[in-house]
Amino acid sequence: MRLSVRLLAASALALAVAPPVLAQDAQTIQRAQTIRDAAMRENIAMDYVTQLTTRFGARPAGSPSEQAAAAWAADYMRAHGFRNVRIEEFSLVGWDRGEESAMIMGDHPQRLVVAALGHSPATPADGVEAPVVWFNSLETLNAAPAGSLAGKIAYVDAGQMVRMQDGSGYGLLSRIRGAGPAAAKSKGAVAFLMRSAGTDEHRMPHTGTTRYVDGQPTIPSFALSAPDADQLTRLAELDTAPVVRLTSTARTYQTVSQNVIGDIPGRSRPDEVIVLGSHMDSWDLGTGAFDDGAGGGITLAAAKAIAESGRRPARTVRVVLYGSEEVAQPTDTGNGGGAYLRGVQQAGALEKHIIAGESDFGADNIYALRLPPGGQNSDFARAAAQVLYPIGVLSSATPELHGGVDIGPLAGAGVPVFGLAQDGTRYFDLHHTADDTLDKLDPKQVSQNVAAWAGLVWLIADSDVDFRALRAAAPATEAH
Amino acid sequence: MRLSVRLLAASALALAVAPPVLAQDAQTIQRAQTIRDAAMRENIAMDYVTQLTTRFGARPAGSPSEQAAAAWAADYMRAHGFRNVRIEEFSLVGWDRGEESAMIMGDHPQRLVVAALGHSPATPADGVEAPVVWFNSLETLNAAPAGSLAGKIAYVDAGQMVRMQDGSGYGLLSRIRGAGPAAAKSKGAVAFLMRSAGTDEHRMPHTGTTRYVDGQPTIPSFALSAPDADQLTRLAELDTAPVVRLTSTARTYQTVSQNVIGDIPGRSRPDEVIVLGSHMDSWDLGTGAFDDGAGGGITLAAAKAIAESGRRPARTVRVVLYGSEEVAQPTDTGNGGGAYLRGVQQAGALEKHIIAGESDFGADNIYALRLPPGGQNSDFARAAAQVLYPIGVLSSATPELHGGVDIGPLAGAGVPVFGLAQDGTRYFDLHHTADDTLDKLDPKQVSQNVAAWAGLVWLIADSDVDFRALRAAAPATEAH
Repeated sequence: MRLSVRLLAASALALAVAPPVLAQDAQTIQRAQTIRDAAMRENIAMDYVTQLTTRFGARPAGSPSEQAAAAWAADYMRAHGFRNVRIEEFSLVGWDRGEESAMIMGDHPQRLVVAALGHSPATPADGVEAPVVWFNSLETLNAAPAGSLAGKIAYVDAGQMVRMQDGSGYGLLSRIRGAGPAAAKSKGAVAFLMRSAGTDEHRMPHTGTTRYVDGQPTIPSFALSAPDADQLTRLAELDTAPVVRLTSTARTYQTVSQNVIGDIPGRSRPDEVIVLGSHMDSWDLGTGAFDDGAGGGITLAAAKAIAESGRRPARTVRVVLYGSEEVAQPTDTGNGGGAYLRGVQQAGALEKHIIAGESDFGADNIYALRLPPGGQNSDFARAAAQVLYPIGVLSSATPELHGGVDIGPLAGAGVPVFGLAQDGTRYFDLHHTADDTLDKLDPKQVSQNVAAWAGLVWLIADSDVDFRALRAAAPATEAH
Repeated sequence: MRLSVRLLAASALALAVAPPVLAQDAQTIQRAQTIRDAAMRENIAMDYVTQLTTRFGARPAGSPSEQAAAAWAADYMRAHGFRNVRIEEFSLVGWDRGEESAMIMGDHPQRLVVAALGHSPATPADGVEAPVVWFNSLETLNAAPAGSLAGKIAYVDAGQMVRMQDGSGYGLLSRIRGAGPAAAKSKGAVAFLMRSAGTDEHRMPHTGTTRYVDGQPTIPSFALSAPDADQLTRLAELDTAPVVRLTSTARTYQTVSQNVIGDIPGRSRPDEVIVLGSHMDSWDLGTGAFDDGAGGGITLAAAKAIAESGRRPARTVRVVLYGSEEVAQPTDTGNGGGAYLRGVQQAGALEKHIIAGESDFGADNIYALRLPPGGQNSDFARAAAQVLYPIGVLSSATPELHGGVDIGPLAGAGVPVFGLAQDGTRYFDLHHTADDTLDKLDPKQVSQNVAAWAGLVWLIADSDVDFRALRAAAPATEAH
């Protein structure tokens, strides 16, 4: 009912306000195609990711590795022709995993492969040992009577994450990770276990941050690898409650992270900025090649391809390597995206941020372009299709509203955002695991990413396309 | 030259001694086909492997888990109609991994994922920290000057193991594992690192036993996962020698392992025995589903399928679940295959062992039958082909000479052996890793294994085929 009324209103609005026509001349499109093809042939993305992940390994937010990697990346940007390269520091609460273990107890103990969740507190020094109570969903855990988990370990195995191109199977599992520990604590549980939010069948637990309640950590919380979850669930079905012993020396600490920012200054309207983003930090288990060294390589390589095309675009192309994407609490200020927005607001530069995009879904082929609301049937969309369709990127009818974690604060402050959707079919095999390493990148698919970014960003940067105006003219159903 | 002379001699022999003709009547073949098809439809293999790996997890030789699993398996055999079920104990030197770690040192350390090799000694309590010297082969390590590795960690990365259906890429890498630590020690090295003998690209080191020299362990020795080896080799190429810190609390201890033996007694010639084998112990990292819980499931299920076919065969079908296959030194007596042979010899039963077979190469489809020398062009081979070809098993022209580790002692003592070769394409993705878990088994392929074993073993057990006589009549080139 409500939907129908709004659709009618939207149609009326569409008739009343015609979207502005955008001029993308043939030469601009042709240049974009040339830049795209050159980027496909050769680019610096793999060089950057290889050096980053080899020299610094894992880069937890606020760690010496992330800090050293940021300093190195600033030099890398300078060496590759970026201007006005700067490091923007901000403070955050870091989280250090320390050592951890899990064991099914009894006459012949079995070791379980686990990873503590980000911001999980330590166990007591001698660990937590308790019977496991299995729940097949977050809902059944939420429905457990008050006090019913006193002295127990709550274990949620809601089955294996569904594999989808767009990664949409993740939501269910990541909700369990975020809210499960708090729910378990509220029923008296002494620790929390869950099946990893992942699509693989390896002994690779997937970490990820769990949520504080009232600014405080909950209970020691761990993800089991899929085979370990299979095993524990089979044992829970076979026996009376298995007893598990958990140890963790995780700790939080006050530290500093940083955004690394570099520009390809615009030829004629340098105050108008297109921001390309990714994050520099990684989880501690892998070396953050897929998540998100690749995003840095792709956006740096795309900007460099534009810079070296023989003609700088009218507007400025900015690359930001955000610090601390992974670990901050939602309510925290210790994330790079928030720090960048504060800097932009202090400089009064928000209105000159034309658009922002983020590459943070691995390194496999891009299959769809999502423009801000109102962009879908624009001249700009038709120009973009001429550049992107030949390399396998469809123009999506779905508008991009939020971007991602790094550009979410910009989007929330009104900056239009676009999405170049990557094939996420194998993304959650690797995401937040020890297996997120360089060998998982396919250089050919990485180059397709660079080509798509370079071609699209050139089109935006060497034009006067105004996504705020398109959005303002868009039907209301799309605009929020 | 030498080969040609022997081929001539062999031809002469083949003319002189005609192989005995074996009667496999149509009814025997038809029964084998019926047993095969029934086993394909339904069998106990997955039930056995599921229970074994879930109840007991990893089963290192001589551990409480292996001992408890053996007692349980004896009960399982009895419950499934096996007779004369017995446990044959023997002593061995066990090896316990303890805790281990590896770290690339420096301003921002990087953790490496490693597994100590079986029988690797512990490091000092505060670890070993030393520069790494990279070798691209065992030969270049062997060629290093005496004393040149004093105070260094020798590291052999000879590149990734080649993936082959028959697993023949393993030889090169397993040689490095066996002989590398001794070679490194002889040049003064304080520790040894190698790329895992495996075909996967996961953070999964492959363990496996390294060899003693003069009855003594060598130096602390570890396998790196493939991505970790990639990383260390890239760093060795990028920088001056990276410094690595290694810790291990591994230890050996005196303990007891056991063979579990059960029979389907023969109808008319019960003293004539066909031995089906696999091993009960596993490496400590996984739960030993592929290596070799599957072999137990397949051989037990095949024997049970024969027992329940409505008519017991003339000869006895024996299933042996050998203890301690993985960890014994080659010169040791602490392996199940050797203990079984000693028992058979003491009982004077060796000559009545008609043939032995071993299932220890995972759980994927069987693609080839290898008979003992002289069997290749026999009536028996033609009968076997009628049973096996319809389920995808080719009769190989290559004779089986050695069997495997468990039946190797029997083969060495003159018992003919056969091989049902399994598809090993993905075997070395899982072999000796934490990833060797139940989910990796494909029940359909497991059933094809059971069907092939049941059909073939029935043909042997309900006949008077004499593989010793076939071998004696075989051309000399095949017979050793």
